[in-house]
Order: sequence, then C-alpha cells, then structure tokens
Amino acid sequence: MTTRVDPKQIKDLISGVLVREGVEETDAGYVADGLVQASVRGVDSHGIRLLSHYLKALAAGRINPVPNYHFSETSPSTGVLDADHAFGHAAGMRAVHHAIEMAQRAGMGAVAVKHSTHFGAAAFFGLEIARKDMIGFSFTHSDSLIVPTHSSRRFLGNNPICFTAPCHGEEPICLDMATSLITFNKVLQLREEHKPAPPGVGVDQHGHETTDPHHIVNLLPVGGYKGYGLSLMVEILCALLTGMPFGPHIARMYDAPIDHKRNLGQFFLALRIDVFTDINSFKKRMADLAESLRQEPPVDKDIAVMVAGDPEKKHAAHRKVHGIPLRTADFDFFTQIANQYGLEWDTVSG
Amino acid sequence: MTTRVDPKQIKDLISGVLVREGVEETDAGYVADGLVQASVRGVDSHGIRLLSHYLKALAAGRINPVPNYHFSETSPSTGVLDADHAFGHAAGMRAVHHAIEMAQRAGMGAVAVKHSTHFGAAAFFGLEIARKDMIGFSFTHSDSLIVPTHSSRRFLGNNPICFTAPCHGEEPICLDMATSLITFNKVLQLREEHKPAPPGVGVDQHGHETTDPHHIVNLLPVGGYKGYGLSLMVEILCALLTGMPFGPHIARMYDAPIDHKRNLGQFFLALRIDVFTDINSFKKRMADLAESLRQEPPVDKDIAVMVAGDPEKKHAAHRKVHGIPLRTADFDFFTQIANQYGLEWDTVSG
Repeated sequence: MTTRVDPKQIKDLISGVLVREGVEETDAGYVADGLVQASVRGVDSHGIRLLSHYLKALAAGRINPVPNYHFSETSPSTGVLDADHAFGHAAGMRAVHHAIEMAQRAGMGAVAVKHSTHFGAAAFFGLEIARKDMIGFSFTHSDSLIVPTHSSRRFLGNNPICFTAPCHGEEPICLDMATSLITFNKVLQLREEHKPAPPGVGVDQHGHETTDPHHIVNLLPVGGYKGYGLSLMVEILCALLTGMPFGPHIARMYDAPIDHKRNLGQFFLALRIDVFTDINSFKKRMADLAESLRQEPPVDKDIAVMVAGDPEKKHAAHRKVHGIPLRTADFDFFTQIANQYGLEWDTVSG
Repeated sequence: MTTRVDPKQIKDLISGVLVREGVEETDAGYVADGLVQASVRGVDSHGIRLLSHYLKALAAGRINPVPNYHFSETSPSTGVLDADHAFGHAAGMRAVHHAIEMAQRAGMGAVAVKHSTHFGAAAFFGLEIARKDMIGFSFTHSDSLIVPTHSSRRFLGNNPICFTAPCHGEEPICLDMATSLITFNKVLQLREEHKPAPPGVGVDQHGHETTDPHHIVNLLPVGGYKGYGLSLMVEILCALLTGMPFGPHIARMYDAPIDHKRNLGQFFLALRIDVFTDINSFKKRMADLAESLRQEPPVDKDIAVMVAGDPEKKHAAHRKVHGIPLRTADFDFFTQIANQYGLEWDTVSG
C-alpha cells in the first residue's frame, strides 16, 4: 500500500527532527530540502527514505551535527571547504553558494569539499547553480561498486556526473547520471521479483557478465571503458583534489561500521553564462534546442523523445500536487518519529 | 602494404605545405603538431591522413589561412575567441593558452571559441593544459550523427569529452571519448570486411537497432540515454555558449559543399591543481591511483586492466621509435605533395 504525503509537511518534519537531534537549523533545512526535492523529482533512492539511515549515522557520530566548517578562498575563482563531517547536503549547498559568489565576481567558481558525507542527489546542487542563470557541475565519488574494464574486482564507485543549464520557460535542463547503467538497489529489486537483469549491467564474483541478479555482485560501468573513464574523472576531481581516500579505501555507506567517518570529497563548479553570450538569448536557444529534441520523430509513436531531466520534471509536476508516495514501511517510520519527537504529521491522502 | 614515417619529418612536411598555402607559420605548426600527435598516439582517424581533406577545405575557402582572431577576456577567468574560420587546431591551441594564462592569475580559465572548424583530437588541447600541471577539459560539437533515445532520426553529434590530469613519472592521464560507442568510420570498415557490428551501436533508417553494418545509417549514444545526455551537455557548452548552430544545423564535415563554413564552437577549461592541494602530492597520488588500477586482478590473465589514455601511451612509445604506419594510398599522397611543393620527404623504413 502507498500513502501520499505533502512535500511541505514532510520537509518540516525532517527539518524538525534534525534540529531536535542537535543539527544547526540552516543545515537541517538544507538536508530536508535536498531529500524532499529528490523525492518530489521521483528519485526515491536519494529521497526522504534516506532519513532513517542518516539518523543512525548522526547518532553514531559518523555525521557531525555541529560542524566547524572551514572555507578558504584559494584564488579569485577557487576554494576549499573542509566540512568537518557535516551532512553532505549542507556542506554541498554551502560550497555551491561560495562557488556562485566567486563566479559573480570572477566569471567562474569551483569549490572542492573535503571531510564530507553522503550528499544525496547531485542534482540538488546543480539545480541551485542553474537557478542563478549559471551552468552548474556537481560531482561526488562513492563506495567502490563498478569493475574497471577487464578487471574481476570492483574498484571505483558509480560516481555521478551532474550538469545543469537554465532554460527559458521551464526548470533548468538537468543531467544527473551515475556511471553504472543501473544501481545496485535495482539488482536487489530484480532478485526479489525473480526477473533477469538486462545484459551488460553486472558481473559475478569472477568478473564475468551475467544477467542472473542473484549472481551479480558488482556493476559494469556504463558504455564499457567510457563509463569507467568518466568514473575515474569524477574520482580524480573528488578524491585527488581534496586529499580524500579513493575507490576501495572509502568507508562504505552501509557495510562499514556506522560510526566510521566517510571522508568523502565533492566538487562543484559554477560557470556564468553572461560572460560568454547574452543570457536571455542563451535561455531561449536552450528552450528551442530542448523543444526541437522533444519534437523529433519517435521510433514508437507512444514514446516521445525526452531531454535530460524531463522524467524528473514530470514526476515533480505530479507529486507537487498529489504528494510524495510512501511505502507502508516508510510511512510507519515517519509516523513513529513524528510521535517520538512530538512533531505535526498528517497525510494528505490515504 | 604499410610504410612507416618519422613523426618529426612528417610534421615538417605538413607544416611546410600549409605555409606554402598561405597559412600563418604558428598556426601551421599547431595543425602539424595536432595531426602528428594524434597519429603518434594511434588515433589514426584524427591524424595526419586528415591533411588531404584540410587542403581541400583551405582551397575552397571553408578554412581561413589568415584569420583575424579576436579574443575578449570577459571576466578574470573567462574569455571568448572568435576564430574567424581558422584551423580548429590553431584556434583551440590559442584558446587553451589564454585559458592557462587566466588560470595562472585567477585559479581557473575557460575559453569558448566561435566560428571555428574541425579541431582534430580533443586530447591535443587537454594534454597541453595537463602539461602545465592543471586539470584540462576540452570539448567540441560535431556533425549530427547519433539518434536521441527513442528517436528515429539523428540529431546531435557524437560530441567528444576530453579530461586530462597530470601524473607523476608519466604522461598525463587522458580520457578522450566520443559519445557514441563506435565511430561511423568503423561501420564503413565493417561493411568492407562483411562483419556484423556489435549490438547496441547503430540503427537503421527507422531508428531500429541492427547489427548489419549495411543497414546502419546512424549511431546510438553510448550507454543509451546517458550518452545522449552527455552529448547534449557538450552541445550546450559548444553551440549555446558560443552562439553557433546546433546539431542538425551544423554544416557537415564531408557531406556539405566544401566551401561551406563549419561555424563550429569549442569549449576549453583549465583548472589549477595547486589551489586545491599540493601539486606534487596530487601527481604522486595520481600515479598511485593509476598504478593500483593497472595492478587489479584481470578477468583474463592476458588482458591487463588499463587506465584512460594507456592504449595511446603504448602506441606513442612504439611509434616514436618505429615511426607512424601509413597505408599505401596515404603514403602516395604525402609523396605527391612533397614533390608538388618541393619539400623534403624520405621514409624511415619501408
């Protein structure tokens, strides 16, 4: 059974719980915003259901509720943020604001974040940049999960790449892609459903490709050695520029003891558009390009051509009105914490 | 039959021919460098055999031998180069030098190039940046060739992404990938060899996937909608930031009349590393990361795990010593132009 909840109400609940747990109010707001935005955009894997994990990480000391942020502007366009094990959402949003500020002065701004934690969906940060009429890039590395081409063992994470650009008349264009073809959560789901995995997505313990989800232990990079190369690019930006551990040396999100610090690195870049071309022409041409693509002749007349971020926009249009669907277990979790913390909690519809 | 030629000698020949054709000496040097570097690195599709096409484009007025370059620094970290239809290699190298200079002052430097032409291999520019101990990005858009996901018609090019990073004790790490899985040249080769194409690389005129190279008329993006999204990202950077035409509106390299201007856009970014972390530690950790990947257990003991750019480094090590292999037709072409322009031309070995 699925219950739908109002985005605004769940945002207040999440933020309220975090504040009661000692998280600084601005940071609690960023985490709540990021989780709810992901859920509203249909990216449930990175949405509100992560709260339960985050609360455990907070209680165990992996995430620091009152971080001593240290930001150094290291040149007119670059900076480093030591996040002191803050929530990744909060560290990321602070970094992005520094990047935007530097871009306003210097044309571009890039911030590398160190000693960070899981930041949720990369799009949260990219969209923030694009809403300021800039092009945004947002990267994080993650647990070792994909096998390098020709290797039998996982090494790099399915490190996401997020690129955003503002668009006239609609929300920014937003590419937010992992560098594996499917997530490991999807493999677990296929196991439950006794369905085969698509070819080319996963390998067994010897590194041999298999479509049996029960034998898939690691993932293949998207597009073979190209996805592996892109994942390495993200690792260089996030681990090497920040001095954080890389690939197999990263404490795993779920498998490592919950009190182990993640020490993740993230990298954000804001690029002003008006230093290259007129911003209004850019946004109109962006809309023209997007609309041209959507009008292209489809192979199957019932499946239209889409543009990066279109599925998420569709979800958001629906969920903003009808609420975020929650599985019973998740709904019960939120009800329980609302009671536990004495916070308001009504569902929109049953 | 294959003949091998000395890289230095062919570079002098190419540069000499271009100068005789009225190309400014510095620019002629950049073109010769770019073409020979691609060939030395084994990227023959983007190497010296392109000279014959370029000479036709030069004669027909598509490429301007004496461009009136106009560079505007539009902020401390950004600039726009109007290339006035110069050789893409020359425009790109000039843009990259501006980007490096701005990065030295401002931390980062990005240059968008407009009214440009084919620039050869994206790695040529990325490697130049990395040799200055910076991280480099290099992008160009290209002829419409890939079908957007669910579309039956080609729209965007297989727009390449190049990322480079300096590495202790070896040439920079270099990812230079098209956003299709194989090139159209490869399809033509498979037709000649009567071999099937791998699954998932190409489509017929209705947009249906096929492995029959004779039916493949367009290419699929690498990794489905993810490659399509990456190609769109490159198009936005190269066409929309520069005001140049996008996708299907670009004059095709070979199919458009040879006197038609290409009006291509390119985008380069140089990112200083020492503003984020100690440059020597970075380069040592880069070498450690690369070497760790190479030492990973392979699926097949005879096929080692490699790092982005390793195949090209292997080619370069061999070809720098033994020369660049040329097919008879290409060898005859170079012999003919050497005679025509009265330039020196001996092969190293037959």
